[in-house]
Amino acid sequence: MRQANRLLTVATPGRGLVEITAEAAAFVRASGIANGLLTAFCRHTSASLLIQENADPDVRHDLDAFFTRLSPDGQPGWRHDNEGADDMSAHIRTALTQTSIGIPLVDGRLVLGTWQGLFLWEHRDRPYRREVVLHLIGE
Amino acid sequence: MRQANRLLTVATPGRGLVEITAEAAAFVRASGIANGLLTAFCRHTSASLLIQENADPDVRHDLDAFFTRLSPDGQPGWRHDNEGADDMSAHIRTALTQTSIGIPLVDGRLVLGTWQGLFLWEHRDRPYRREVVLHLIGE
Amino acid sequence: MRQANRLLTVATPGRGLVEITAEAAAFVRASGIANGLLTAFCRHTSASLLIQENADPDVRHDLDAFFTRLSPDGQPGWRHDNEGADDMSAHIRTALTQTSIGIPLVDGRLVLGTWQGLFLWEHRDRPYRREVVLHLIGE
Repeated sequence: MRQANRLLTVATPGRGLVEITAEAAAFVRASGIANGLLTAFCRHTSASLLIQENADPDVRHDLDAFFTRLSPDGQPGWRHDNEGADDMSAHIRTALTQTSIGIPLVDGRLVLGTWQGLFLWEHRDRPYRREVVLHLIGE
Repeated sequence: MRQANRLLTVATPGRGLVEITAEAAAFVRASGIANGLLTAFCRHTSASLLIQENADPDVRHDLDAFFTRLSPDGQPGWRHDNEGADDMSAHIRTALTQTSIGIPLVDGRLVLGTWQGLFLWEHRDRPYRREVVLHLIGE
Repeated sequence: MRQANRLLTVATPGRGLVEITAEAAAFVRASGIANGLLTAFCRHTSASLLIQENADPDVRHDLDAFFTRLSPDGQPGWRHDNEGADDMSAHIRTALTQTSIGIPLVDGRLVLGTWQGLFLWEHRDRPYRREVVLHLIGE
């Protein structure tokens, strides 16, 4: 049984989903591990992880529209607005999605379904450099 | 340290929660592993995983009612409606719940609480055959 | 490769976020494992886990305010209200957050970001004693 890990830096264009499936798959291949568990962990509280459809970009558009309606920026009553109107809504979007996702690896392939991609979801308006830790255990 | 994995196929009756705790426990028992980590992974973007109360079915009814009010089918403005009015709401429900859940295994038993069950949540109206990968590492 | 686990009991003051980062870090240090994967698992369906900002307590205030507006207690139409007006909303808050979170451990440190803390989120009004299982695998 072995382990591997890598710190992935993801440049985001502001609010939106950035696919990192290829980076995760490349890390898995380079590790030489064929069976095990990959864990992706996002080191932020205003960006998160999500597995969603990677075929039709309309899904990402509609997801963002839903979350914007669910948790609009700049709500009166919010106390935490140090960094602007999108600050607290970014925390809320993070709470409603994932900070950590585990994906089994079987016979050299992540078991993602046909339409599944792994995404970093930037919840802030401006571009950031985000850190995702990839950890793999197996053999 | 050893690993085991199994592809579980779950027939769903349309939208609703299908308990798979017994299937997960049977896989664990068959593996012969007594201490470790079970990961359940759902290979879809319109169905998801959830740990919830398995005692009172009213909980599942009210959960479904809440999500239906939160994200009604067939919203005007949605771009992604290729497969019908329940298509995009299924993606939203998936984003708000889990695709992957890890459950520790201690002394031969999953550490689920007294009232906890593991469920596949079908978010589409029609019945489907869904795939859940179970992965276990431990000894 | 080795494993360790611990049952953590968390006394909650009623609805609100209780940080358990220090307890998780202490468990990791005591294990002697330097690289691996920590899994925290909450054994309840009316309390959950969340990674959020541990710097400004206003974030926790606003998160709670958001969830209260999203899923108010005592909704007419709810069938599951055996234990009071906060019973079903506690299940909903649990479904929308996490029951299980995996955090990689690299060179003796959990890879939490600078502002990230691990929290148990009590969703019931009254104080409870909650159980969180910590599981660690690595070497």
